[in-house]
Amino acid sequence: MAWIDLGNDLPGIRGPMVYRPETGAILNQLAEILLHDDQNSLSRGDREMIGAYVSHLNDCFFCQHVHGAMAQHYFQCDLGFIEDIKRDFESAKISEKLKSLLSIAASVQRSGKLVTKEQIDVAKLAGASDREIHDTVLIAAAFCMFSRYVDGLNTWAPTDMEVYAQRAPMRAREGYTQASLTK
Amino acid sequence: MAWIDLGNDLPGIRGPMVYRPETGAILNQLAEILLHDDQNSLSRGDREMIGAYVSHLNDCFFCQHVHGAMAQHYFQCDLGFIEDIKRDFESAKISEKLKSLLSIAASVQRSGKLVTKEQIDVAKLAGASDREIHDTVLIAAAFCMFSRYVDGLNTWAPTDMEVYAQRAPMRAREGYTQASLTK
Repeated sequence: MAWIDLGNDLPGIRGPMVYRPETGAILNQLAEILLHDDQNSLSRGDREMIGAYVSHLNDCFFCQHVHGAMAQHYFQCDLGFIEDIKRDFESAKISEKLKSLLSIAASVQRSGKLVTKEQIDVAKLAGASDREIHDTVLIAAAFCMFSRYVDGLNTWAPTDMEVYAQRAPMRAREGYTQASLTK
Repeated sequence: MAWIDLGNDLPGIRGPMVYRPETGAILNQLAEILLHDDQNSLSRGDREMIGAYVSHLNDCFFCQHVHGAMAQHYFQCDLGFIEDIKRDFESAKISEKLKSLLSIAASVQRSGKLVTKEQIDVAKLAGASDREIHDTVLIAAAFCMFSRYVDGLNTWAPTDMEVYAQRAPMRAREGYTQASLTK
């Protein structure tokens, strides 16, 4: 149960977002531009995967499964493929570019200071643009916020993976700013 | 020097915010509502101090000194007082409520999962409301994003403390959404 009375029993980040819609709306705008907006050369699937991977490293159950399900929806793959990436992205059947961005994201997850010039060079050699590197760093940083918000307030999360899979197509269609901030 | 060509030589978070004003505007909105907005029972000084403390724990030079200078401005104290709080807030001459919130923020900085029921109980006993605990968790989480954004892109920061002190009164007057996103 959440540490504070949220006045609703919504799972994960949805509870505190509805509790404080003024900040909830801004967090949704951030998710929208980073993950859903199409003015981006990184695919929605790749961006959701970066978020899911960082949430996995943060050990945030809700975030990693919401955004893992989003990546799965965009990739049109099974859950095992997403779990394989989380476990060992270097061995997964994904592009070298996405591997290089996940590597940068993993460093950001621990500390921004751990990103190395070598990681950036590898990403650029794999075809990542400056803007894609920028967005990778900000997505990884944003999920370090989202995970801490979700777990720092001790929110609950569904344990049935179907719940996450069933919501993903709607969220993909509507985007994040259409997410309801009412009970 | 930043890992990517930001097209400007602004320090800290200002560089990537101007590079990508679409996300920069949202990050400023988040800073505004969490730190500057007056619809909040936590003082601006206390909120800036929570951000400065978490940035200190993140070892982010730019963030801790920008927001340390903001807290100093609101508290009308000297820099030594801010540095004493960062070093050992339990011994500092601040309210028991702020101490309890800094303790929660320190847990969030490492992982949201490390916040304990005991920390929440102590904060409530010290007079913290649910909303104040919510905002403390989100401020701490947000600074885990800001610090990683600043350092993950390897931005530069002024080393002269006067630079931070001189800008604080303007930022306090104008707030964060008035911050320029042009070069």
